[in-house]
Formats: sequence, structure tokens, C-alpha cells
Amino acid sequence: MSTPSSLEELIEALRCLPGIGPKSAQRMAYHLLQRDRKGARRLADGMSHALEAIRHCSRCNTFTESDVCERCASTKRDASLLCVVETPVDMNMMEQTQAYNGLYYVIMGRLSPLDGVGPRELQLDRLLARACDGEVQEVILATNYTNEGEATAHYVSELLRSRGIKVTRIARGVPVGGELEYVDAGTLAQAMRERKNVEA
Amino acid sequence: MSTPSSLEELIEALRCLPGIGPKSAQRMAYHLLQRDRKGARRLADGMSHALEAIRHCSRCNTFTESDVCERCASTKRDASLLCVVETPVDMNMMEQTQAYNGLYYVIMGRLSPLDGVGPRELQLDRLLARACDGEVQEVILATNYTNEGEATAHYVSELLRSRGIKVTRIARGVPVGGELEYVDAGTLAQAMRERKNVEA
Ligand SMILES: [Zn+2]
Ligand SMILES: [Zn+2]
Repeated sequence: MSTPSSLEELIEALRCLPGIGPKSAQRMAYHLLQRDRKGARRLADGMSHALEAIRHCSRCNTFTESDVCERCASTKRDASLLCVVETPVDMNMMEQTQAYNGLYYVIMGRLSPLDGVGPRELQLDRLLARACDGEVQEVILATNYTNEGEATAHYVSELLRSRGIKVTRIARGVPVGGELEYVDAGTLAQAMRERKNVEA
Repeated sequence: MSTPSSLEELIEALRCLPGIGPKSAQRMAYHLLQRDRKGARRLADGMSHALEAIRHCSRCNTFTESDVCERCASTKRDASLLCVVETPVDMNMMEQTQAYNGLYYVIMGRLSPLDGVGPRELQLDRLLARACDGEVQEVILATNYTNEGEATAHYVSELLRSRGIKVTRIARGVPVGGELEYVDAGTLAQAMRERKNVEA
């Protein structure tokens, strides 16, 4: 009797947002319906549009609206270098350093056995195929220096080196336990310059 | 070159949610597109549906899908009592105490001069018209015991008493500075029972 069903459904649907519990979802729904219907309309439409338009680049796996993203399609990048990052945010961070002009592969996650995220869930075979295209001379692992990022780097390096591919890791200029997203560009540039071979 | 426009629009649109800054909005967008497209679809549809379906009850001003909400349409409630609350959440809290069987009026906000929210923005003339329907014998002010809630109660009581309507205020069992939404039902029931006349 208290809450209309369409309002209850909206509150429940808002909980798919990461970090949003029942109280926050309720507050958001009331705010949108009472104070910002225009913003809510824009959000509903923006989400629908993004769901239709956004796919993964067939080369680097990042979000894109085309089959191949602009960066992968560019002829101005050094195609012999492939930098592996966890997320599109990390890729943007790396770009901002202007210390790198190669291409990327975005894993869209990291190994996390406790959460059931293994090599299969991350489709790491796609990364392998991309790295073995014949053009790539060096794969630079730029996953986070967290436990999970380290485990991911270790797994990927084993995978690639068994195929005879040169694998490097960005230098540990990134603070131990830190995430690329929160590191300043100078530190990240240094880490890129000081990248080193991955030893067995 | 970095972020597809539909993704940028989604991130920007997510910022209409209260308490969500640029970093959170980006994280939410990536999460939805990468890990929970089904949830995102449900959210976009749920929001569209709620925007179409939800309006304000013409009697009590709460969210409803009909012209008059179920509670206002019920013949089992005591129509001589009108309890004024700030939000639908507060109304639900009051209902859960089972200490009250009258009707409600939901202001959908509170006076907040600093934010430009005055009597006109809250359409308090609608509350006045509702309270003066001839059936209402007592208006019970159950706004929060915050500064803004108190100011709202004061303003409304002046408005109604000038029309000769009996106005009471729920007892200050609610902690000073506290919000109804976070008070236990027992305290709230007590505050309802011990309501007292508003003196000049
Ligand atoms: Zn690409
Ligand atoms: Zn109603």
C-alpha cells in the first residue's frame, strides 16, 4: 500500500549501481522523481543509448562505438609495442603521461580467484592472439601493483614468454599496493621509462 | 580520441545522481557496461517507466500511480487527523509505528532559505487547502526536529492556526538534530502519543 510498484522497481534497479545500498537507492529515486526529472530522463536515455552503441574494440578490447577503436586504427602509433592494462581508465592515465606511443590491450579486469575471475572469464586467449600477430615485438605489462594486478602480470608473462614473446613490466615507481588510477602522471611516466624485462 | 561519446554522455548523465562525482560516475558506467548490462537495461527501463507512471497524489502529495493514492482513498482511516511529514520515507516510518490511523500530507521537502526553498517552492498553499477541507480537525506536525524541520513546523503552524485549525506537534521524543528516517519505531510511537498543542 505504501510504495507504487514502478517506484519500487526503480529503487530496486538502482541497486545494480556499485556501492549503492537500499537507503541510497531510495534517496536517489526520490531525488530524481521530485527534483530532477530532466536529469533522470537524460540518464535513462543515455544508458539505453550507451548499451546499444558501446562494444569492445576487436583489437584492444576497450570500449568503442566502432569495430576497431580510433587508437588501434591510427597509423601514428608504434605497432611493435603492446601495453597491457586492466581498465580503460588506466589506459587514459598512461596516455596522459605522453611517455608511450605504442598500442594497448585492455584486459577489462584482473585475475581474482576469490571472486571467480580466472583466465577464462578475462578471455586472456584474446590477449594472446593479439600479442602473437607477428607485428608486436614487446608486451609491456602495466597492470596495477596490487596483489591481483601482480598475479595477473605474472600469469600473462608466463603465457606470453612460453610463446617466445618479449615481456616487460613497468617499473615499480607505482607505490606498492597502489592503483594506477590514483598515481600522478610524472611517477607513471618514470615507471614507463624504467620498465624492465620479466625474469623467470 | 579516448572515450566514445555515448560513454561520455552516460558518465555525465550519471552525475545527476545525488552524491556521485566524476570518478564514481565513471566507475559506475564501466561496471554497468562491462559487468552488468542486464542491470543497466533494467535501470534504464525502470527509470523511464517510473517517470511516466509516477505523479503526486492530489490529496496527500506523495508519490503514486493514480490521481488519489490508496491510503487517501481508504475508508478505514480517520479523516479528521492530518499528519504533515517531509518525505514519503517519513510517512512510511510513521506507518510502521502503528500508532497512527489518520491521513497524511507529504511536503516533499522542508523550508531551506539558504537553498532557495521557500513556501512557494514547497507549494504550501496546497497543504493549507487540504487542511481546510472541513473534515480535518487536527493537523499533526511530524517534520524532523532539525533546524529546517523546526522552521517548517513553525511556519506551517502559524499558517494553519491563523485559519483557526488545531495544530499539534509530535513530542520531542525524536532526538534533537535527528531525522525520522533513522529513529526506531518505539521512540516514534511515543512521540506520536505525546504530541502536544502548538502554543503561540
Ligand atoms: Zn582498440
Ligand atoms: Zn494520498
